[in-house]
Amino acid sequence: MLATVIHAARDIRVEEVPDPELSTGADAIVRVVAACVCGSDLWPYRGVTKTEEPHRIGHEFVGIVEEVGPGVEVIKPGDFVIAPFYVCDGECANCRNGISTSCLSGGWWGSDDRLGGFADGGQGERIRVPLADGTLVVVPGPIGDDEVPGLLTLSDVMGTGHHAAISAGVGPGDSVAVVGDGAVGLCAIIAAKRLGATTIIAMSRHPQRQALAREFGAAHIVEERGDAGIARVQELTDGIGADCVLECVGTKESMDQALRSARPGGMVGYVGVPNGGPELPIRSMFGRNVGVNGGVAPVRSYIEELLPDVRSGAIRPGLVFDLELPLAEAAEAYAAMDERRATKVLLRP
Amino acid sequence: MLATVIHAARDIRVEEVPDPELSTGADAIVRVVAACVCGSDLWPYRGVTKTEEPHRIGHEFVGIVEEVGPGVEVIKPGDFVIAPFYVCDGECANCRNGISTSCLSGGWWGSDDRLGGFADGGQGERIRVPLADGTLVVVPGPIGDDEVPGLLTLSDVMGTGHHAAISAGVGPGDSVAVVGDGAVGLCAIIAAKRLGATTIIAMSRHPQRQALAREFGAAHIVEERGDAGIARVQELTDGIGADCVLECVGTKESMDQALRSARPGGMVGYVGVPNGGPELPIRSMFGRNVGVNGGVAPVRSYIEELLPDVRSGAIRPGLVFDLELPLAEAAEAYAAMDERRATKVLLRP
Repeated sequence: MLATVIHAARDIRVEEVPDPELSTGADAIVRVVAACVCGSDLWPYRGVTKTEEPHRIGHEFVGIVEEVGPGVEVIKPGDFVIAPFYVCDGECANCRNGISTSCLSGGWWGSDDRLGGFADGGQGERIRVPLADGTLVVVPGPIGDDEVPGLLTLSDVMGTGHHAAISAGVGPGDSVAVVGDGAVGLCAIIAAKRLGATTIIAMSRHPQRQALAREFGAAHIVEERGDAGIARVQELTDGIGADCVLECVGTKESMDQALRSARPGGMVGYVGVPNGGPELPIRSMFGRNVGVNGGVAPVRSYIEELLPDVRSGAIRPGLVFDLELPLAEAAEAYAAMDERRATKVLLRP
Repeated sequence: MLATVIHAARDIRVEEVPDPELSTGADAIVRVVAACVCGSDLWPYRGVTKTEEPHRIGHEFVGIVEEVGPGVEVIKPGDFVIAPFYVCDGECANCRNGISTSCLSGGWWGSDDRLGGFADGGQGERIRVPLADGTLVVVPGPIGDDEVPGLLTLSDVMGTGHHAAISAGVGPGDSVAVVGDGAVGLCAIIAAKRLGATTIIAMSRHPQRQALAREFGAAHIVEERGDAGIARVQELTDGIGADCVLECVGTKESMDQALRSARPGGMVGYVGVPNGGPELPIRSMFGRNVGVNGGVAPVRSYIEELLPDVRSGAIRPGLVFDLELPLAEAAEAYAAMDERRATKVLLRP
């Protein structure tokens, strides 16, 4: 079968790889209906993180279950399923606490794992899901083809934007500034609106993304960065800053922007993978009582909550996909996102 | 009149200073009934922060109002009042948000200020309070002398311990680990218990403080530090760490202990003044979804909530005072706290 393999920076290939096989008893084989490219896939693509040897890549997909192991009780062949960007059992203490990304038995797509054999990357024709009952969420049919992009966002970006908002404690009446206009930042706007924020400020310089930000609920666009950007956010928030700031980038500059855009006593919810590890300046946080909360988003734990609103059309995160390509053109998908020609690319095997 | 003046590291003197005088119209003169020494007063005492020139020191007191300016409407001569460790107007956007430490018109005791003349330190016979109506809280009489220590804790340590617990989101059923067994750490135990925590773990090596920690509600004492301490906390919390950790010290080591004692998805509430500015390790926070929230505690905003429980005896934070001295012996008060012969010293002018 075909799957995407990264060989080195800017060297993405779609290659023949072995078909996946059931091995643990608790696993399932899923035929991928749609996958996509994540902003975090661009770190190895850009060489920011090193690719030591060729390996499978991708971690977001939806598909149809083809086979299940003898220990699988919930998932059945023929089910349409959403896979989060990691594997989890749904039963351990961390899963029960809603932090399924810290599952005591879990793991990551595309890594060698302790769950029985090779853990496939998410961009391929078929994928073995090691802990099927804990990991996959069944979407009852029938499912229209136009529903696929929205459902696919629940595997990562919509749940991640929601996690930023939950981590920042967004609630009714809050003012919210969103740093980052990628797919996650745009989904964070949806999440903030959904949770009742009344003033949403999107920090964006990109006309098409600004338009989508407005469609998703942002009342204000701030193009400025640094001190000027902070001054604009303060102007829009009684002179003191936003109640909640959602940091959806992961650089030192974006976190600085986020911390200083929060009002005293405000909270930064962050989901941008920290790139290069900017440390947090505790003294300025302390003096202004600005908190920081978030991390790798436990999107599996959010799917049941968000799914009804996606299916009803109450929220439309599928609009973040602005390019669709066949899996065979995965290299172009990466290039388009790298060059910011596309916000997020959907791949169809 | 007499007041405490710091001249240099380990050089605390009680000296004649000018009597305070009303100057802004919004101010009051308070005759101090009791003051105390704060753990943060030990930073200049120990020379960790530099004393450039002699200045008044102290920022916690209760007393009787003697005079008020013509613009003061709430506070009256004869009132028994609690002063928080800072000055605030109670009216600005930050005060309305409950972050009165970031008051747009506020300031700090013992600093030159923009509020009209010299801002007195808190350890003296009389003190001018620049924004009396916003800063002071009246305690209706009669007030027994045995109530004074408890009321005095509302000027700082009890409110600060409460802020740690609020910042960490402590609620019913939570497991809470408290790092630091000083007066603030002990008050944080009281606060966690009051907010409904069911498993409270005090990290302490000091027998008398351990006893007080147990009296305040800690079910477990952990003497170990570092990896061994974290392992003990995990043993007591289903193997994953505490829901909430209250960091009440302010060193790099104590913050590290706190971050690693939290479970995935847990929250560290911190109120220890960061000493030397340890930065926060964002990558490990990100991977485990451990948040950090807190800062300089807006204790003024908490006094009304906590006062009834102090007066009823439902909570007994006054027990953190284990030494009482006349103001004239302030130098011994500092030495006793520095050498850990006393947890917290009450001074009577």
